[in-house]
Amino acid sequence: MEPREQPEDIASSARLETFADGVFAIAITLLVLEIRIPEPGENVARAILNQWPSFLAYITSFLTIGTIWADHHRLFTVIRGTTYGFLFVNVLLLMPIAFLPYPTAVVARQWFEGKDQVVPAMLLYGGTMALVAVLFRVVWRYASSRGLMSAEATRSRAYRRRGELIYRLAPLIYGLALLRR
Amino acid sequence: MEPREQPEDIASSARLETFADGVFAIAITLLVLEIRIPEPGENVARAILNQWPSFLAYITSFLTIGTIWADHHRLFTVIRGTTYGFLFVNVLLLMPIAFLPYPTAVVARQWFEGKDQVVPAMLLYGGTMALVAVLFRVVWRYASSRGLMSAEATRSRAYRRRGELIYRLAPLIYGLALLRR
Amino acid sequence: MEPREQPEDIASSARLETFADGVFAIAITLLVLEIRIPEPGENVARAILNQWPSFLAYITSFLTIGTIWADHHRLFTVIRGTTYGFLFVNVLLLMPIAFLPYPTAVVARQWFEGKDQVVPAMLLYGGTMALVAVLFRVVWRYASSRGLMSAEATRSRAYRRRGELIYRLAPLIYGLALLRR
Amino acid sequence: MEPREQPEDIASSARLETFADGVFAIAITLLVLEIRIPEPGENVARAILNQWPSFLAYITSFLTIGTIWADHHRLFTVIRGTTYGFLFVNVLLLMPIAFLPYPTAVVARQWFEGKDQVVPAMLLYGGTMALVAVLFRVVWRYASSRGLMSAEATRSRAYRRRGELIYRLAPLIYGLALLRR
Repeated sequence: MEPREQPEDIASSARLETFADGVFAIAITLLVLEIRIPEPGENVARAILNQWPSFLAYITSFLTIGTIWADHHRLFTVIRGTTYGFLFVNVLLLMPIAFLPYPTAVVARQWFEGKDQVVPAMLLYGGTMALVAVLFRVVWRYASSRGLMSAEATRSRAYRRRGELIYRLAPLIYGLALLRR
Repeated sequence: MEPREQPEDIASSARLETFADGVFAIAITLLVLEIRIPEPGENVARAILNQWPSFLAYITSFLTIGTIWADHHRLFTVIRGTTYGFLFVNVLLLMPIAFLPYPTAVVARQWFEGKDQVVPAMLLYGGTMALVAVLFRVVWRYASSRGLMSAEATRSRAYRRRGELIYRLAPLIYGLALLRR
Repeated sequence: MEPREQPEDIASSARLETFADGVFAIAITLLVLEIRIPEPGENVARAILNQWPSFLAYITSFLTIGTIWADHHRLFTVIRGTTYGFLFVNVLLLMPIAFLPYPTAVVARQWFEGKDQVVPAMLLYGGTMALVAVLFRVVWRYASSRGLMSAEATRSRAYRRRGELIYRLAPLIYGLALLRR
Repeated sequence: MEPREQPEDIASSARLETFADGVFAIAITLLVLEIRIPEPGENVARAILNQWPSFLAYITSFLTIGTIWADHHRLFTVIRGTTYGFLFVNVLLLMPIAFLPYPTAVVARQWFEGKDQVVPAMLLYGGTMALVAVLFRVVWRYASSRGLMSAEATRSRAYRRRGELIYRLAPLIYGLALLRR
């Protein structure tokens, strides 16, 4: 995309991290908006228990996006700087991440009440997770091939394996979907 | 969780703070969305007075989350850095904090209009606050046991007592609930 | 509030600014959510023209909150650091700022369609603005009396006058309300 | 606007960037809220396919705002600092950017279902994009004329051409609108 980048085009990644953190922060809190406040006079305990898929969706989405954020954070401890092209690759990665609360909510709603609709819901969720994993790898490759990563990190297998936690989540989800049928 | 962490794995906590601040900023403003704008022609003063539980919920939530934020801020003035595991402990802490506007709104709606439903609402609120307090302590312990805290802060009783303000809020809430019956 | 603060309790104000910026960013964009997307087949031009009070509310709120943000930014160029108590004073200031989109939307809706309801709407708006102005002054006083401000700024009249732009907006609003009757 | 600015009034642009990043982060994620979660029992695949204009709006808005953010980021790598007046010029620029999700959603909804309403929708979208482009140029001019930009950047044609990517998007949009008729 940006093959003509010269060394002096490498800028600090501080602002890329601030922007990404903003997107992560919004995505991670989004599903709290889905939980309905009981009306006055309504039985509060029952209203809350009946909504437990929404609570579960909030917790799942929080832990998933929190994990991806921690991986993104860890990746950027070995990133030396950013180029114009690298900003775009990161925007691409953030797109399915900010979308993740949606499939999480779809799965939660279908899991308990719409049994025959669980599989398409899981496909949407697993597909989004797979896209996050693929784009995470693209960000990694882009950074290491353009010299944006510390030499040590580019060589080290230990560092390389670090971004892979989320890879293992997608197949797990599919496994659960099969069990669920 | 991450017992094999070596010293070189300690990274700056700057980005953890930026992310936490984003989550705090969203959580603290969330309840303004719950206040309904009067329709044209509707009596504005009455529409606003009738909604005073929503206003109270906004103020309570703002002051509570503001206090927790200030405590988080104070804690991090003695944190020297972060590890991968410490990121997760902080994500866990942020989960009930971002959820806090929900029980606050539930209590506010039931307090004045759904009298017999106040106790379950208070249990939800107090339980969330207690979870915040417990996880705050977990963050503190994790940081001091992994050497992420300045030696002085780990020893000092004055510093240790600092995170405890929110501890005292939860029992207060329960006390109020009992009085309210 | 915190009279026993010792010099070593002064921490960097960087995180206070990040948090405030998050609250400002959310508040400033909030009213875009109030603008209704026309249904398919609905006359788009008419649907947009009929909603012009909502557009005006968005613009007004953006410019007002943008101005307050710029003043907050300017104030913090002369702030040397922060204490635990100063964090709370700033949380208090942020409370009416994050609330500001609400009275702005109330005024916009009543201004054109609910003529006899303009005055209470204006009182709500003007009152919120006045509260922002008063708390801005409290933040200023707190900072200068606790030694959180550079000595030059504490003395200088030019610096002191800087926070006063928003002061002049509240009476202007009231003037407009009187003209409007 | 601020012709009497002295050199000592130039402050770091760090906080302006943090605030802008917050606004960008909110705007870029906003349209995920427009996608409806299927009800339990509803056919999930069909519900999602029927909403594809909303998905397209999310993707378009994400890529567009992501591009503008990358341009804003690139511009600020050559900005040396900020003045009070420069803050306002940036607030003006952020106003149509935070608004952009709205026209994007309007176009998406009319493009497939409200065929004769595509042209006014496109005018709204193209007009917003044109306003962003014009204000981007105003920010650039303001910075270079007030000495807020590095001397090299002010001279260089290569740097100057950099902010122009979004310029080319607006006419493209209009071209598409004409084809669509």
